[in-house]
Amino acid sequence: MNKNKSNERDQQAVSYKLAELVKNLPSELEISIKGDANCIIKGVTTINESQPEHISFLVNPLYKKYLATTKSAAVILLAEDAGECPVNAVITRNPYYTYAKIAAFFDPKSKPRFGIHPSVAVGNNCEIDLTASIAANCVLGDGVKIGAGVVLGPGCVIGEYSTIDDNSCLDARVTVYDRMIIGKRVQISSGTVIGSDGFGIAKHKGSWHKVPQLGRVVIEDDVEIGANCSIDRGAIDDTIIARGAKLDNLIQVGHNVRIGENTAIAGCVGISGSTVIGKNCLIAGGVGIVGHLTITDDVVVTGATVVSKSIREPGIYSSGVGGLMTNAEWRKNSARLNRLEHLMQRVKTLESFINSDSIKKREKET
Amino acid sequence: MNKNKSNERDQQAVSYKLAELVKNLPSELEISIKGDANCIIKGVTTINESQPEHISFLVNPLYKKYLATTKSAAVILLAEDAGECPVNAVITRNPYYTYAKIAAFFDPKSKPRFGIHPSVAVGNNCEIDLTASIAANCVLGDGVKIGAGVVLGPGCVIGEYSTIDDNSCLDARVTVYDRMIIGKRVQISSGTVIGSDGFGIAKHKGSWHKVPQLGRVVIEDDVEIGANCSIDRGAIDDTIIARGAKLDNLIQVGHNVRIGENTAIAGCVGISGSTVIGKNCLIAGGVGIVGHLTITDDVVVTGATVVSKSIREPGIYSSGVGGLMTNAEWRKNSARLNRLEHLMQRVKTLESFINSDSIKKREKET
Amino acid sequence: MNKNKSNERDQQAVSYKLAELVKNLPSELEISIKGDANCIIKGVTTINESQPEHISFLVNPLYKKYLATTKSAAVILLAEDAGECPVNAVITRNPYYTYAKIAAFFDPKSKPRFGIHPSVAVGNNCEIDLTASIAANCVLGDGVKIGAGVVLGPGCVIGEYSTIDDNSCLDARVTVYDRMIIGKRVQISSGTVIGSDGFGIAKHKGSWHKVPQLGRVVIEDDVEIGANCSIDRGAIDDTIIARGAKLDNLIQVGHNVRIGENTAIAGCVGISGSTVIGKNCLIAGGVGIVGHLTITDDVVVTGATVVSKSIREPGIYSSGVGGLMTNAEWRKNSARLNRLEHLMQRVKTLESFINSDSIKKREKET
Repeated sequence: MNKNKSNERDQQAVSYKLAELVKNLPSELEISIKGDANCIIKGVTTINESQPEHISFLVNPLYKKYLATTKSAAVILLAEDAGECPVNAVITRNPYYTYAKIAAFFDPKSKPRFGIHPSVAVGNNCEIDLTASIAANCVLGDGVKIGAGVVLGPGCVIGEYSTIDDNSCLDARVTVYDRMIIGKRVQISSGTVIGSDGFGIAKHKGSWHKVPQLGRVVIEDDVEIGANCSIDRGAIDDTIIARGAKLDNLIQVGHNVRIGENTAIAGCVGISGSTVIGKNCLIAGGVGIVGHLTITDDVVVTGATVVSKSIREPGIYSSGVGGLMTNAEWRKNSARLNRLEHLMQRVKTLESFINSDSIKKREKET
Repeated sequence: MNKNKSNERDQQAVSYKLAELVKNLPSELEISIKGDANCIIKGVTTINESQPEHISFLVNPLYKKYLATTKSAAVILLAEDAGECPVNAVITRNPYYTYAKIAAFFDPKSKPRFGIHPSVAVGNNCEIDLTASIAANCVLGDGVKIGAGVVLGPGCVIGEYSTIDDNSCLDARVTVYDRMIIGKRVQISSGTVIGSDGFGIAKHKGSWHKVPQLGRVVIEDDVEIGANCSIDRGAIDDTIIARGAKLDNLIQVGHNVRIGENTAIAGCVGISGSTVIGKNCLIAGGVGIVGHLTITDDVVVTGATVVSKSIREPGIYSSGVGGLMTNAEWRKNSARLNRLEHLMQRVKTLESFINSDSIKKREKET
Repeated sequence: MNKNKSNERDQQAVSYKLAELVKNLPSELEISIKGDANCIIKGVTTINESQPEHISFLVNPLYKKYLATTKSAAVILLAEDAGECPVNAVITRNPYYTYAKIAAFFDPKSKPRFGIHPSVAVGNNCEIDLTASIAANCVLGDGVKIGAGVVLGPGCVIGEYSTIDDNSCLDARVTVYDRMIIGKRVQISSGTVIGSDGFGIAKHKGSWHKVPQLGRVVIEDDVEIGANCSIDRGAIDDTIIARGAKLDNLIQVGHNVRIGENTAIAGCVGISGSTVIGKNCLIAGGVGIVGHLTITDDVVVTGATVVSKSIREPGIYSSGVGGLMTNAEWRKNSARLNRLEHLMQRVKTLESFINSDSIKKREKET
């Protein structure tokens, strides 16, 4: 088999004049074209491994070194970088957003067909909009409501009395438990589980007993959730993911957690139960957050941090010490740390040789 | 669509007198009601965001401040807190367990229907109890045994010669590979995979070669496993999760691991191959455990710890240093650590100015 | 139900003479048998919990102490250990690889049946080899190509225009998005998602907007991927997992990542977008790797390390300080670290009592 770009993709190839790609973009971007507004664009490319007749963008300063030699037909960039651009330039106040809008012209994904595949098992008293697309082997419980333009990929399971509002898209093999609420334009990638029981266990006579999990998950409009995540239903109240929040892959959200509007959470993050995260936060990959905490709005947490207490002030937060090093250096460093108490004793011994009053006097002076 | 509690749920509403909810609870809880034993309870609520005609509980001391102003109809609590309770009180020796038993009265989950959905693919020579419920699109291999009262959610795949014993419940889209053993009353949430091959690879002439994984996973009675976990089959012997163990979501259990009775493991924990964990342990979220270790009974491991050696004594264990701080402080802290060796040299220099015999003499005296 | 090894398995029991098991192994292993080459072997066992008529192996030095008392019929080992072996010995230059080849004789997995289960939904213009096996409830989009000997477990979803090359095996419930390329002899365990959208979001007027993800995932020949992983499609270029790479369970691979040939990655690793990992690397469990980095060939990263910068030289790398200790000691250690700045001040004060020129002189002498 041929591992090059498939013919199927090329057959779907489209082309646009550069000016066409930007003509409907919002005026606040203050877009202008430097160069040939009629040049033909057939796809997107990166600035470093660029292809002719494709458009690229410059956002990350690390990649600016490639600008002078780019082979792309045009580059989307800030005005301040336009002078160094050797090819056509799309000058904009927000290159990455502009790129996002232009790239959508070249998305080869097929439009799903309307309707319900004959293999779908539909419960009693469901309300399914005629413009929804429900793929093969989906299973819908009783009383499920599916809004206009909703797309369910193959093998999704929607529990009874759950609702999925207009224009949301669940990819293949997503599970939504019973009584969940999913808003408009929500996107969920394959394998994610919405509404499994939270980890509620009570000890009695030496054994654990399950605590019923009676809340729901409420996912508001414009939320995006990646692949193979698990979002637990609330124990009593609901687990809530607020409007516009974006979650990457393999994220665990415990019961009763609330994630604020427009907060973005990268992959492999675990959020323990009953924690509340504010709006417009950025949680980097691999972060762990202890339960029952409150994180205020506009907080950034750097990668692999353990958030062990509430964060009351906006800002950037981290934990742990000791960056990447060779294993030999790392072993030495760990040993140093363990010698710290010993070092403290040696300093105390030294101090005892000097009149303590003198030390205090000297400290006052400094 | 309406995002409030769905009508369907309200239509299923039930109500009980407070006394009814506790009358069958075990006598060792020494339950008594202070106030109106006939007050009507229609659901559960939290002590802080409480609803009238609903019952709440007080376990976590952080929430005691809400007791004086709670709006719930009754609160489940310890005798020592009853004096401050402004509403009806259910006094018990174990409030959380008592709550768990009472909350079960208000669980709206439908009972699954008996029988096998017509879309289920059943292999040859399966033994399926007549009281089992097997939902749409399940696939059962040859020789599968399904006990009484077992519930399989939609889209489960059970490999050949696996057995699932009485009253176990697998939610939607659980995979059980071939020859697995699942005990009684086991609960597994959606997306979890039981019995995939362990990570066994042998290098030969510069390439990795698969080592066949011939063991099974044995899950004993009353085990609970959350969503999107992966539990590998043993390489030769079995991977074993002992009776009453409770696992949260997104947990990785390597091949040949043994998890002891009543051990509870929170989300995002990774356990490498051939490690043995004792009984009644608590492993907090995000912990990583190296392979081929032994952890004795009654061990608590705090969140995000890396367990890099065996633990022979019961107790609480942690790793890493440097709690949560601002990123600016964190950068400073890391720099300090790197200066530690330099500091040690400066202390040595100071010591060299003082007669070493004097130091030794002084040390002896202290 | 009986939790002992199932009768079904015993009925499939096979037996071989020891000499038969090794006769086709590669000559460079320099295999010789010490003892009875005709002894009967009915399965594999571990050296410590050994069974008669079964064969074990000795690789990990931790297990050498069991050699003298092993009850297995034969042990696969290095020549240097053969002298201490009380039973038949298979002497080889590579005991683990030799074991892997011998264990394959005892793998009880059934051969899948050729053909397409009637419940499979097949799109238009698919090319499916006659020797492929496609299990119940798989869903194939338009234009899918399935090579010779390919096995798809129940419930797999293959997106349009994806290709799966000869002799690859996807276990139950694997998702492959549209336009993916999967090579020959690739093995993917249950629940894994190949090709979900990468985490590309652009902020505009305070809200996040999706950046279309137009690349693919290309998985080369002989790659193995465990359960419940998520491998994102590229944003523009492809995400590439090169020939012979081996990935364990619950691994996150971000968009545009490239993983080199024969690199092995253990469970719960997260790799952020656009990072490039070289050949023959070993990434241990729980490692997190920041985006846009380059890791050269032959790098080993120890467990739970955070790789925060590129690695240009082969070697072993680690991060963090503070190994496992009791929680009490850990609290003390964290306090010590926070006192480090204070300690530095005390040393400065001490130094100020001694003529700085003397110190410099002394330092020169040492």
